[in-house]
Amino acid sequence: MNFFSKRHFFLALFVAVGANPVMAKSLPLPAWNNGATKQKIIDFVDRVTDPNSNDFVPKAERMATFDNDGTLWSEYPVVQFVFMGERLKQLLPSHPEWKDDQAVQAAINGEIEYFIKNGHQVFRKLFEITHSGMSRTEFNKMAEEFFETAKHPKYNVHFTKTKYQPMIELLSYLRDNGFQTWLCSGGGTDFMRAMSYKTYGIPPEQVIGSIGGFEFISKNGQEELVKTSTVLLNNDKQGKPVGITIQTGRTPIFSVGNVRNGGDIAHLTFTNGNQKPHLELLINHDDSNREFAYAEDDNASLKAAKKQGWTVVSMKDDWNQIFSFE
Amino acid sequence: MNFFSKRHFFLALFVAVGANPVMAKSLPLPAWNNGATKQKIIDFVDRVTDPNSNDFVPKAERMATFDNDGTLWSEYPVVQFVFMGERLKQLLPSHPEWKDDQAVQAAINGEIEYFIKNGHQVFRKLFEITHSGMSRTEFNKMAEEFFETAKHPKYNVHFTKTKYQPMIELLSYLRDNGFQTWLCSGGGTDFMRAMSYKTYGIPPEQVIGSIGGFEFISKNGQEELVKTSTVLLNNDKQGKPVGITIQTGRTPIFSVGNVRNGGDIAHLTFTNGNQKPHLELLINHDDSNREFAYAEDDNASLKAAKKQGWTVVSMKDDWNQIFSFE
Repeated sequence: MNFFSKRHFFLALFVAVGANPVMAKSLPLPAWNNGATKQKIIDFVDRVTDPNSNDFVPKAERMATFDNDGTLWSEYPVVQFVFMGERLKQLLPSHPEWKDDQAVQAAINGEIEYFIKNGHQVFRKLFEITHSGMSRTEFNKMAEEFFETAKHPKYNVHFTKTKYQPMIELLSYLRDNGFQTWLCSGGGTDFMRAMSYKTYGIPPEQVIGSIGGFEFISKNGQEELVKTSTVLLNNDKQGKPVGITIQTGRTPIFSVGNVRNGGDIAHLTFTNGNQKPHLELLINHDDSNREFAYAEDDNASLKAAKKQGWTVVSMKDDWNQIFSFE
Repeated sequence: MNFFSKRHFFLALFVAVGANPVMAKSLPLPAWNNGATKQKIIDFVDRVTDPNSNDFVPKAERMATFDNDGTLWSEYPVVQFVFMGERLKQLLPSHPEWKDDQAVQAAINGEIEYFIKNGHQVFRKLFEITHSGMSRTEFNKMAEEFFETAKHPKYNVHFTKTKYQPMIELLSYLRDNGFQTWLCSGGGTDFMRAMSYKTYGIPPEQVIGSIGGFEFISKNGQEELVKTSTVLLNNDKQGKPVGITIQTGRTPIFSVGNVRNGGDIAHLTFTNGNQKPHLELLINHDDSNREFAYAEDDNASLKAAKKQGWTVVSMKDDWNQIFSFE
C-alpha cells in the first residue's frame, strides 16, 4: 500500500482508469525497477516529508550527499585521470623532455595501473603540473573545454553523458521533496564544479570535493586567485565526514556511495550516526553487460552495509536503464 | 524617483493616503537613514533583480557575503576571545598550574593587549586548548551554552544581542530579493555556526570562517568527529577570497566588511573584480556615543574604498538605530 499511498494514490488512479496516460510519467523514479530498493527510498522520503509522521525532518535539515565516480557517473575510466592525460598531451609540444618520460606517457595513455604500481609520488607530480600554477579562471576554462570535447572510450559520448539515469531521477525526486542535494567526492572541487550544475543540477556551492589551496595575488595590476599545489583536504574515505562538516556543519540524512575501494564507508557511516531518520544506499557494480562488474578484494563496503543496515543497490536488478544516453 | 519606483511605489501610495499605516513598516531598511548610502543599496537591489534591466543577475548568482566582527555585531570585545577566556576559567580548577600563568590570566581578564604584545604563539597555545581535542558535538554544546549565558561587559546583554539592527534588516531585505546571505569572517566556523541561524538567519552551510581540522575516529565503538589543532585556513585578509572560493566556487556580487585592521580589503576587492554588477559596503566605526569609534593607523581600508569605489557606511550618519536591543 505504501508505494501508492498519499499523493501517489491519485496519480495511480488516473493511470489505472486511463484518464491521462501522460501522468504515468509522474510516478517517481521510472528507471528504477519496482521492488524493495525503490520502495525503501520512496517510503523514506514519504516519512521525512510528512509533517504528521514521527520521522518528519524539517526542510533545512534534509541534506543528501552523493559520491560522484561510480555513484552518479561511470568510473571506468576515472574521468579526472583522463583529464590529466589530456592536459599533459596538450602540454607535450612545449616539454620535449617528456618524450621518453614513462609516467607522462602512462598518463596520456590512460594506464592507471602504472601509477598503482609506481606509487603516489609520481602521480602527485603530474597532478600538480596539470592542476596548479594557473588562475582559477584559466583552470575552469580547461575543465569546461574538456567536458565539451573529450569522449568516453567505450561509449563514445561526452563523459557527462555517462551519468546514470536512475541517479539523475533520484536527485530530482529528492529536490522535489525539499532536499538539498550535495556532491561528496574524492574528485577535485574545481574540476567537478565545471560540470556539476549542467550535469546534475547541483550548484557549485553544493560541491564537496578534495580541496586544493589558492593564493589571492596581484598579477598585471589585477588581483586574482591562483591555484597552488597544497592539498587542504583529501575528501576520500575518513576525509569525507570531514569535508561534509567543513562545508556544511550538518550531518546528512541521505547518502549514496558505491563499492570499489571502500571510499564511501566513512561517508555512509557518518550519515548512519545521524540522530534523525536516515537512509544510506550503496551502489553495487554487478552489471557486466550494460556497464562494468567489479568488487572489492576484502568486500569491506558490502560488509559495512550488512553490519549497519545500508541498502545495497544492484545495478543489474534495480535499474531498468543505466545511462542517460540510452 | 528610484526609491519609490516599482514595487515601492504602491506601498508609498498606501502610506501617503493613510490607507493602512501598518504598511509603512514594509518600506525597506527602516533603521537606515534616508540618504545616499541607503539609496545606493536599494538602487543596486532594484537593478540586479529587474529582469528588464541590463544589470539583471539570475537568482542563483546573487551571493552576498558579510564579515561578522564589527560588521554584523560589535567587536569590542571580540566575542570569540571572550569565549576563550570563559573556557579557560571553567578549566582552571583542574589546572592548578595555571594559577600564576600570565597568559591564562590575561585571557580570562580579557586583556587582548597582552597577546598583541607577546606574540602569536602563546595565543595559539591557549586557542588550541580551548578549541580542539573535543568532539564536534561537545564543542557545539560549549559554544551554545556560552551564547546563552555570557553577557557583553558594556551593554549587559547576551553577545548575540549586540547585532546591528540595520544589518539584520539588510540581511532580510537581500534574502527577500532572492540573495543568498553568507557569513565570511575570520572567526572559527564551528563557533559561528553555533549562533548564525538563530542570530542572523544564516544556516550553517552558509558560514565561511577560519577552518580547523577534524578526525573521524572511533571512540567507545562509536565513530565521531574530533576537532584537531590543525588550521586549514585562516579566513582573514587574503584568506577571505580563498575561503569564499573553497566553499562556494562563486564570486559574490555584494559584500560588506568594516574598518579596523584591513581584514576585509581582499574580501571586498574580490567582489569588486566580479564581471557582474557588484556593490561593496565598508562600515566605518565613527559613533563613539552609541557604539565605539576606531580607525586604522594607515587608513588602508578607507583608502582602498576610495580607490575602488566602495560605499563607506557611517554608523553615525547612516544608521538611526545601532543595536537590536535598543
